[in-house]
Amino acid sequence: MSMRGVLRLAEVQMRVLDMAESKQHYGTRMGLHEMMTDDNGLVYFKAWAEHDHHSLVLRETDRAGLDHIAFKVYDDATLDDLEKKIIEFGINVERVEAGVYPKSGRRLKFTLPTGHEMHLFAEKQQVGNSLGTFNPDVIPDDDVCRGFRINALDHVFIVGPDADQNLKLFTEVFDFSYTERVIDADGNTVLFFVSCSSRAHDIAFGMNPEPGLIHHVSFRLENPQDHIRAADLIGKYEIPVEMNDRHGVTQVKTIYYFDPSGNRNEVFCDGYTYYPDMPLLTWTMDELDHAAFSQSLRVPESFLGVYT
Amino acid sequence: MSMRGVLRLAEVQMRVLDMAESKQHYGTRMGLHEMMTDDNGLVYFKAWAEHDHHSLVLRETDRAGLDHIAFKVYDDATLDDLEKKIIEFGINVERVEAGVYPKSGRRLKFTLPTGHEMHLFAEKQQVGNSLGTFNPDVIPDDDVCRGFRINALDHVFIVGPDADQNLKLFTEVFDFSYTERVIDADGNTVLFFVSCSSRAHDIAFGMNPEPGLIHHVSFRLENPQDHIRAADLIGKYEIPVEMNDRHGVTQVKTIYYFDPSGNRNEVFCDGYTYYPDMPLLTWTMDELDHAAFSQSLRVPESFLGVYT
Amino acid sequence: MSMRGVLRLAEVQMRVLDMAESKQHYGTRMGLHEMMTDDNGLVYFKAWAEHDHHSLVLRETDRAGLDHIAFKVYDDATLDDLEKKIIEFGINVERVEAGVYPKSGRRLKFTLPTGHEMHLFAEKQQVGNSLGTFNPDVIPDDDVCRGFRINALDHVFIVGPDADQNLKLFTEVFDFSYTERVIDADGNTVLFFVSCSSRAHDIAFGMNPEPGLIHHVSFRLENPQDHIRAADLIGKYEIPVEMNDRHGVTQVKTIYYFDPSGNRNEVFCDGYTYYPDMPLLTWTMDELDHAAFSQSLRVPESFLGVYT
Amino acid sequence: MSMRGVLRLAEVQMRVLDMAESKQHYGTRMGLHEMMTDDNGLVYFKAWAEHDHHSLVLRETDRAGLDHIAFKVYDDATLDDLEKKIIEFGINVERVEAGVYPKSGRRLKFTLPTGHEMHLFAEKQQVGNSLGTFNPDVIPDDDVCRGFRINALDHVFIVGPDADQNLKLFTEVFDFSYTERVIDADGNTVLFFVSCSSRAHDIAFGMNPEPGLIHHVSFRLENPQDHIRAADLIGKYEIPVEMNDRHGVTQVKTIYYFDPSGNRNEVFCDGYTYYPDMPLLTWTMDELDHAAFSQSLRVPESFLGVYT
Repeated sequence: MSMRGVLRLAEVQMRVLDMAESKQHYGTRMGLHEMMTDDNGLVYFKAWAEHDHHSLVLRETDRAGLDHIAFKVYDDATLDDLEKKIIEFGINVERVEAGVYPKSGRRLKFTLPTGHEMHLFAEKQQVGNSLGTFNPDVIPDDDVCRGFRINALDHVFIVGPDADQNLKLFTEVFDFSYTERVIDADGNTVLFFVSCSSRAHDIAFGMNPEPGLIHHVSFRLENPQDHIRAADLIGKYEIPVEMNDRHGVTQVKTIYYFDPSGNRNEVFCDGYTYYPDMPLLTWTMDELDHAAFSQSLRVPESFLGVYT
Repeated sequence: MSMRGVLRLAEVQMRVLDMAESKQHYGTRMGLHEMMTDDNGLVYFKAWAEHDHHSLVLRETDRAGLDHIAFKVYDDATLDDLEKKIIEFGINVERVEAGVYPKSGRRLKFTLPTGHEMHLFAEKQQVGNSLGTFNPDVIPDDDVCRGFRINALDHVFIVGPDADQNLKLFTEVFDFSYTERVIDADGNTVLFFVSCSSRAHDIAFGMNPEPGLIHHVSFRLENPQDHIRAADLIGKYEIPVEMNDRHGVTQVKTIYYFDPSGNRNEVFCDGYTYYPDMPLLTWTMDELDHAAFSQSLRVPESFLGVYT
Repeated sequence: MSMRGVLRLAEVQMRVLDMAESKQHYGTRMGLHEMMTDDNGLVYFKAWAEHDHHSLVLRETDRAGLDHIAFKVYDDATLDDLEKKIIEFGINVERVEAGVYPKSGRRLKFTLPTGHEMHLFAEKQQVGNSLGTFNPDVIPDDDVCRGFRINALDHVFIVGPDADQNLKLFTEVFDFSYTERVIDADGNTVLFFVSCSSRAHDIAFGMNPEPGLIHHVSFRLENPQDHIRAADLIGKYEIPVEMNDRHGVTQVKTIYYFDPSGNRNEVFCDGYTYYPDMPLLTWTMDELDHAAFSQSLRVPESFLGVYT
Repeated sequence: MSMRGVLRLAEVQMRVLDMAESKQHYGTRMGLHEMMTDDNGLVYFKAWAEHDHHSLVLRETDRAGLDHIAFKVYDDATLDDLEKKIIEFGINVERVEAGVYPKSGRRLKFTLPTGHEMHLFAEKQQVGNSLGTFNPDVIPDDDVCRGFRINALDHVFIVGPDADQNLKLFTEVFDFSYTERVIDADGNTVLFFVSCSSRAHDIAFGMNPEPGLIHHVSFRLENPQDHIRAADLIGKYEIPVEMNDRHGVTQVKTIYYFDPSGNRNEVFCDGYTYYPDMPLLTWTMDELDHAAFSQSLRVPESFLGVYT
């Protein structure tokens, strides 16, 4: 069947320290389209290939980090179905009326075992990808696909205690597939990768004592040449770069860099096509170099310790 | 949720006129791995990134074309569920025991409205993609990913009468999403594209008076450089080429060429990421040039008339 | 030594039928920078990576084609040296004062055996490539490298009688290397490729009874992704395309298309690195398919017959 | 004119500590073709696209580093011409008979101001690039272009005292163009880049108190996808990597890594097309980050301190 149930990570709300600098970073430099500012000063962005009104929301405050993630589901009936199951799982669910979150239909709001706020919604205003739907254009104009040429919001990697409970929730309730994991010397899993698509992960969880932190928010690029272009622009703008390499896990070509507030961003391209009849891949911590950065085999200390 | 139900086109059996030439074409030149020859002389091939034992089967006989297509489903319970629904739809279903088709679990076998034989199965012997599952390799060796560097079987485009009934079956019973279509001057749909993945189509149907014919079988490449490599090899081997271009429909970069028996093959890369909340795209026949070949806007006569 | 003597094809003046349409074609669509219009209405363009003020000049008149080509030489002394040798070769040379051609130093002007007007000059006003020369930028901005993302004017392919005399002039007087050729069934060379750089040709000559015609003017792209982008834009703008393929001769990936006046343009990427200690490559007319279009092996009739 | 005089860096002889490991590194892994072992145990390698019998020579001994570099010149007359000029410059020249260096014509042998041994030769046995010269193939087979898919030896970066005297010799005697430089806070040039081709450098010199050391030997790749492939293989083989980035100087995409003896290697792709009418580019040491590694702006300590 086509994808049903939970479809994708469709919205991330990040906390930033300075909105003007953040608008320059995410908008002017990375090329995301600034869609609106709401009455509370939150700024809404969309990547060119997305149809929904926005996928990234920024809130200016005094502490960087992640406010919430929101996954889009196939239809309203899915919300009812999942609400029951989340409650059965042991997690309280708050219902949020349509429109409370701008341009969005009603939402279910709850807290993950790792301490992160998560929403599910079925409806969002769609503005399209600029190509049209009747004899559509095939390629975007240069003023539509610009900057880093990001196609879409792709995933987040979040950390907290009880990441294994996140895995349980996502696999048993949201019906994600468990695609890859990293285990420590005692055989305990410390990094969990799950997918609801044909990509190797739509979200990843890592064990960390402090709840509610984010390792990175990730955006999808079209091809390796755009990846090179993004790397060149990151250098040109002197954006702090952590790594430019390939991940063994998921096989994507990645660039990790930081927004002006210290939130880690990723842009990536490639990665294998995942199907649920593929075996779970297991990496051990002593091979973390290959798992994390398979070209340079270098794992910067910051990579394992810096979250917001 | 992750993909469930019908997962992907997992097997195509083609008729070829000369097995030796076909083994050279699909194996030596295109780089598919020849896995075995069964007692009836059928030859089985696998693309490097696939885990299943085989995805392409060739049968030597005196008429080129398609013997059957087979989709893999998530689990055995799906077979039971779909068997009921297919019968309700009005199509007879034959049960085939495990092992009748080599390396395969039990199958449901039935005939599509367009006259094509289709199977569903849940199990096939898996041999892996050579990378391993415990601290896996990240890239394949040159003797594994070779020739055209094809990753996987991707889709077929089949033609026959009642293609609209195929659409009905695939959307209502198999729960595929209807992604794109081409309509004629009278508003009738003549080309139907449906997806069960995040690619724009996993199978396509076209209206044609004669039943059971195939337009092309398609294989997925990793990136544009491999696409260029395939094009260079096609020229080197003097394989008859029909077109090398981009499709407006699905946006993939394509090369159409013919196997020694006259069956049309495609290798492609790229294409947009599809989600079921994206609107159906409609093309009109008078814009077929953009829909079919958006770079050259040339539609060879053969493209609309040659099937096997 | 570094390149000395004749350096490169540095200017081409083309005749166009409609300046407005041509400005849209070469400027807006292809992305060349429109630098100025002179008192006679000629319009001057520059590709982003070039340092000279302009490389393409358009003159509106009632017959498409080539007015002149101009090669830049290393220094003024080279002009004196070559003037003597051209005259010795048997070709009259006219001296043109600095400034007669806008932004240009003095020129030598003469007619090639094939009937084409050719200039040599040592000086042209330089405007730079936008990156600077002191702690320069590394990559151009999106408003500098745009459209087809053309780096530079690269070469022309001109046709006329006595193309073999052009070869003699270019190799014996201008000290070019003879890199590749195409010979007919009688062993006569009909296509001549010569180089003054590390590319396989800086100019090519073909035998044709009528003098002074041009097969194509060619512009150099940075990489295959830009080549794909150009092809997509050509389709989007419905610019008439002749071929998109690879040349066996020079190995470049090419796209041939026509400007609004019917002048053939080429954009290309790649191609091997040439050195004068490499053997002359010879192709026979019966293998013209591989020589001309090594991926599709298709040689459109227009390719051998349409000149302006 | 086409390139004359000194054509290119055509041979590098490196000292390695373990020949077996080095043959695996340069041959099996990097994909260079092992051509022969001479009576003294030196091993000779060739990159696929080169025509000369070999370009890299390895000599096993107890100290890593560079034995000599050799540039090929256009013809024997150039040797006579340059011999005079080198002597006039103040450097002794030793004549070496043809055949003393295997497969090579006669050589001039001398010591650069920086302490490095340099040869010039006009003749070397040619074995071709496998494509042929009569209706040649257009692309190499997978067993010819393999491993890192290196096209050719490209340049070296050598360090020693009096690097400015190297510059003088190369520009005034060998007629190279001075393309880029890095100056320190006092305005003294510490890094010199010179070219005899249309690439931004064919050799580079750096100031270093100790004479005769090498920073790196560099090999040219065809395109960015091969660059990614090389990076993946370097990680797969766990070859020590120093950096994967773009140089501001020359704009090439680079990977620096070490052979088993600690000699630094580079593979690169891209880079701008250089002409001698382009202005000298100057970088300051305080912008070394952009000059050296324009994507990450990171300059590892090893980069400025490790030579062999």
